[in-house]
Amino acid sequence: MRFATIERTNGTAAVVAVSDTEAAVLPDGFTDVARVVAASEGDRAAAVGQALRTGRRLPVAELSWLPPVPRPGKVLCVALNNSANPDRILSGPDTPALFLKPATALVGHGRAIRLRKDDGRVHPEPELAVVIGRSATDVDRADALSHVFGYTVLNDITAPGLRAEDTFHYGAIHPDPQAADGVRTVESWVSYPGRYKGSDTFAPMGPWVVTADEVPDPHALRITCSHDGRTVTDDTTAHLRFDVAQVIAFASRYLTLEPGDVIGMGTALRRSATGGAVQNLDLNRLGGRVEITIDRVGTLANTVEWR
Amino acid sequence: MRFATIERTNGTAAVVAVSDTEAAVLPDGFTDVARVVAASEGDRAAAVGQALRTGRRLPVAELSWLPPVPRPGKVLCVALNNSANPDRILSGPDTPALFLKPATALVGHGRAIRLRKDDGRVHPEPELAVVIGRSATDVDRADALSHVFGYTVLNDITAPGLRAEDTFHYGAIHPDPQAADGVRTVESWVSYPGRYKGSDTFAPMGPWVVTADEVPDPHALRITCSHDGRTVTDDTTAHLRFDVAQVIAFASRYLTLEPGDVIGMGTALRRSATGGAVQNLDLNRLGGRVEITIDRVGTLANTVEWR
Repeated sequence: MRFATIERTNGTAAVVAVSDTEAAVLPDGFTDVARVVAASEGDRAAAVGQALRTGRRLPVAELSWLPPVPRPGKVLCVALNNSANPDRILSGPDTPALFLKPATALVGHGRAIRLRKDDGRVHPEPELAVVIGRSATDVDRADALSHVFGYTVLNDITAPGLRAEDTFHYGAIHPDPQAADGVRTVESWVSYPGRYKGSDTFAPMGPWVVTADEVPDPHALRITCSHDGRTVTDDTTAHLRFDVAQVIAFASRYLTLEPGDVIGMGTALRRSATGGAVQNLDLNRLGGRVEITIDRVGTLANTVEWR
Repeated sequence: MRFATIERTNGTAAVVAVSDTEAAVLPDGFTDVARVVAASEGDRAAAVGQALRTGRRLPVAELSWLPPVPRPGKVLCVALNNSANPDRILSGPDTPALFLKPATALVGHGRAIRLRKDDGRVHPEPELAVVIGRSATDVDRADALSHVFGYTVLNDITAPGLRAEDTFHYGAIHPDPQAADGVRTVESWVSYPGRYKGSDTFAPMGPWVVTADEVPDPHALRITCSHDGRTVTDDTTAHLRFDVAQVIAFASRYLTLEPGDVIGMGTALRRSATGGAVQNLDLNRLGGRVEITIDRVGTLANTVEWR
């Protein structure tokens, strides 16, 4: 099944796809996909049954899309998780490196990516995203996939100029039993992703959440990214360095995952035959429309506007 | 007024302080301070009036504290925002540097900071925190404080060993019109704060949210941090490099602030006469109890446990 959250004149509603062209509105109370995720299996099945029998039918082409989970507890992302160019990394962790994007950065399919000229360079990052179905604390890798509700598409918009601005070169304070005051300073670099990853509209997501049963292998999905119709990235989720189960197991050892939480699995990077580096696609210079397609999951499209 | 969220046998409730020793439970529906923040001024005043007249009275000493806003849309923190040791910074932004902690990291006053030995060094960071009352997008500095609902205490627990692990030294991809493939790689450092700032229990917060009217100058507050009764940090919010209005104005230019959002204003660092660097207080080696007191705002205390 595939679920989405849409805007209606009288609020928001969750819908279930009936076909590629038609969706059915879920019963009152299912105001978004987070409610669908939180429901018991029985309640969910009853709601879907009722929607398919008697729910209002809407043409998919006319839906006003919101992020499927409009306000996840967290949007957790994995950095540099593509095996396509490990030679870029001079040193780094041998475990998934995690950062957060705020719910306020989310926008739905078809909504604008809103930039300011002084944001500097801004590029898209096409990603498979996992929607958590069951709370997960310190779960085993073998059990990890049972915590997945489904999958969606995430565009992890990134502003590398803001990243460079928000990087400190500094003396970190480390303990030193030999020193008179017990500390020494160690030359370090630290960067803070609040702005460059978390600005408003920097997280287009959707259109659908496809339930896990429809994605038997999340690591065999073609993922493409195009700009104004030209394919830039043509990759596969087989190139994820850490797979979905590894990321859930590792992340849940540190951060409890809750139903509705979203995990961005890391950027697909492999260039298409005619494409270039996705990091070279400066949306703030080029504007235009970014489209990300993941097999079995869907196509997320958003157009740049300036504010 | 000061509000808190407490755990009761039948769920959670918001309370208002009647005195230093007594609190009154707000009417049904006000299940936490987020509801108090979201209410209209009239509804809030009516609820407080009803609580003071007929609400159940509870001794403050027996409250089971939760984070006042249990599930903020975001916990936004400002890095390196103390003027006490600018000489540590070799280069960095001249604007507030922002990162996020997830709601799952929050714990209330009196709850355990739960560590694992392999988290490495872990230190407390005593901070004044702002609770947003009104939505803020791109607000002026002059108007910024009108978006504040109140203030609380945040312990921005940090694991520098995990920070070092989650730092990449890598070749960032930059556009280069001269290059055959349009890009060049630039030696860079990037660090991801998901684990070292965001692990479960890494954000003790509370006990109270004190409304802004009781804190006429948020930049004249003494802030102390003690470990097992020994004062380590003795600082004042006068040492914040960027003040509350500057941080709200700057952050809201990028990330919409919503009612209930929390902003950690950055670590108080000045050592007490007998203290040392707060970064040298390795809770994972020492265990014990951390207490942070901010004038007019309250005292937040949490004890280390190992899991």
